[in-house]
Amino acid sequence: MKNIVVLTGGVGGAKLVLGLARILPEEALTAIVNTGDDFRHLGLHISPDIDTLLYTLAGKANAAQGWGREGESWAFMAALRELGGANWFALGDGDLALHVLRSYSLTRGETLSQVTANVAARWDIATRILPMSDDPVATLLDTDSGRLEFQRYFVERRCDPRVQSILFDGAEAAVPAPGVTDAILSADAVILAPSNPFLSIDPLLAIPGLRSALTQTSAPIVAVSPLIGGKAVKGPTVRLMTDLGMVVSNESIARHYAGLIDGMVIDSDDQCDMPDIVVIKCPTLMTTLADKRRVAQAALDLAARMRS
Amino acid sequence: MKNIVVLTGGVGGAKLVLGLARILPEEALTAIVNTGDDFRHLGLHISPDIDTLLYTLAGKANAAQGWGREGESWAFMAALRELGGANWFALGDGDLALHVLRSYSLTRGETLSQVTANVAARWDIATRILPMSDDPVATLLDTDSGRLEFQRYFVERRCDPRVQSILFDGAEAAVPAPGVTDAILSADAVILAPSNPFLSIDPLLAIPGLRSALTQTSAPIVAVSPLIGGKAVKGPTVRLMTDLGMVVSNESIARHYAGLIDGMVIDSDDQCDMPDIVVIKCPTLMTTLADKRRVAQAALDLAARMRS
Repeated sequence: MKNIVVLTGGVGGAKLVLGLARILPEEALTAIVNTGDDFRHLGLHISPDIDTLLYTLAGKANAAQGWGREGESWAFMAALRELGGANWFALGDGDLALHVLRSYSLTRGETLSQVTANVAARWDIATRILPMSDDPVATLLDTDSGRLEFQRYFVERRCDPRVQSILFDGAEAAVPAPGVTDAILSADAVILAPSNPFLSIDPLLAIPGLRSALTQTSAPIVAVSPLIGGKAVKGPTVRLMTDLGMVVSNESIARHYAGLIDGMVIDSDDQCDMPDIVVIKCPTLMTTLADKRRVAQAALDLAARMRS
Repeated sequence: MKNIVVLTGGVGGAKLVLGLARILPEEALTAIVNTGDDFRHLGLHISPDIDTLLYTLAGKANAAQGWGREGESWAFMAALRELGGANWFALGDGDLALHVLRSYSLTRGETLSQVTANVAARWDIATRILPMSDDPVATLLDTDSGRLEFQRYFVERRCDPRVQSILFDGAEAAVPAPGVTDAILSADAVILAPSNPFLSIDPLLAIPGLRSALTQTSAPIVAVSPLIGGKAVKGPTVRLMTDLGMVVSNESIARHYAGLIDGMVIDSDDQCDMPDIVVIKCPTLMTTLADKRRVAQAALDLAARMRS
């Protein structure tokens, strides 16, 4: 399979993309990344999921922390606090370079796609990283504390407010970024990373042109479940499913992706009783690089089986 | 004397302002600061002379380096270089907090005066720090390498191009910042700090409303010469005077300020043979705090003598 497309969000997705990047030939892989979490903070344009993927693929990610850069320092934040600046969102000194340069490039008329491609080239990342769209899409959560922007919910409020519904402001009008539709239509397989389906994958699916490409492509579409033993490795997936009144199970995930996916990779000890899709099992916890390669290989094997 | 106004630029000026702040009653001192060096870099609004004064009065200045913050770190610059960002202007990690916050506040509609006052309040600085204007004024140098913005000349080109003339773009239309005119008109003394006359003080004098207040005020106006033994402590004063065809002497400085100043403080071992102004001498090299107080006191004494 020459062209593999992976739809991805934050940390969990980036782990799978890294695994795929290590077993596929260079340039076989296109990652289409959620930008619903993007926001402006202190005048800077921040793209958390793109950054996580860039850092992960460049070997700069802070694995222990789960976000940001390895070996990061925090002198900026210390000075910012002293000045009374908003400090609910942590900006590392090295991380800031990416935000400042991106913001500056965007104000000069470059697109998010171009900025992302430039950084990836600078860091010798062969995987093609495409934002889902160059148009602004904002994930908003209606909660018992009112409507919240994603980062306010996720970082500032630590997913505490109870979520009633999620919307993707701007998605209806958003156009897939250059290359996104072509990549999906010419793909040999499309993989949905084990990112949060509701917060990280749904924003992509909410863009009409992107969704339409997924329904048109002849490529099999397989998902890697974000659940292991009924829990998510990281993030608010379980909390969200509960808030939204779902049973926390692989079946709920499969049902959420119904009509879209042909198969799903789940953890060895788990079940997914859904007649319409093919399910394969492997240990899906991704800690080491070997883990990431294993899960990536399982997803590719499942997709290959769907094609034959 | 209750109201003292000092017109100032960068490092040398900040030293005198610190000396004045330590010997005058709190809130007796208003510093009016050059903003001709202000520029946008990577989308950030940077006000070098205001920053130098803020850092100096807050006890945060890096005395050895002559600019920026004490104990500064450089992780941002390292990451920026790695990304291929413009790195000719050094932005420390802590320093960045001031630039990011100022830029953000300005885009939200605050004025440079307001931003500066907020930082000063945050850092318990009693001296009133006023930008010369909230309107943009850009110091430009016509050189044998073409027209250069101040920071390009000063930092990037290290004052190497030969200067033919200096202009202050926007000065004609600029209005003195709130409080500037009143401070000068109600001053008991106005002091021109030993900053570069051509690059740091002239921008202020190029603003019609500010110049007019200086000609109207009944306060004596005294300058502290930036020359010691025919040399400047720091910066391109001598180089500039030579480029512009002037003899490097206190007389040239006094002549440059002719019609404006009533007196001048020069170094103990120097001369200034100008019949129209009163000259007093003291050791003007400001290394220790005692030095700064001594030079500040000399300027105040000279002004007091002019009043009597």
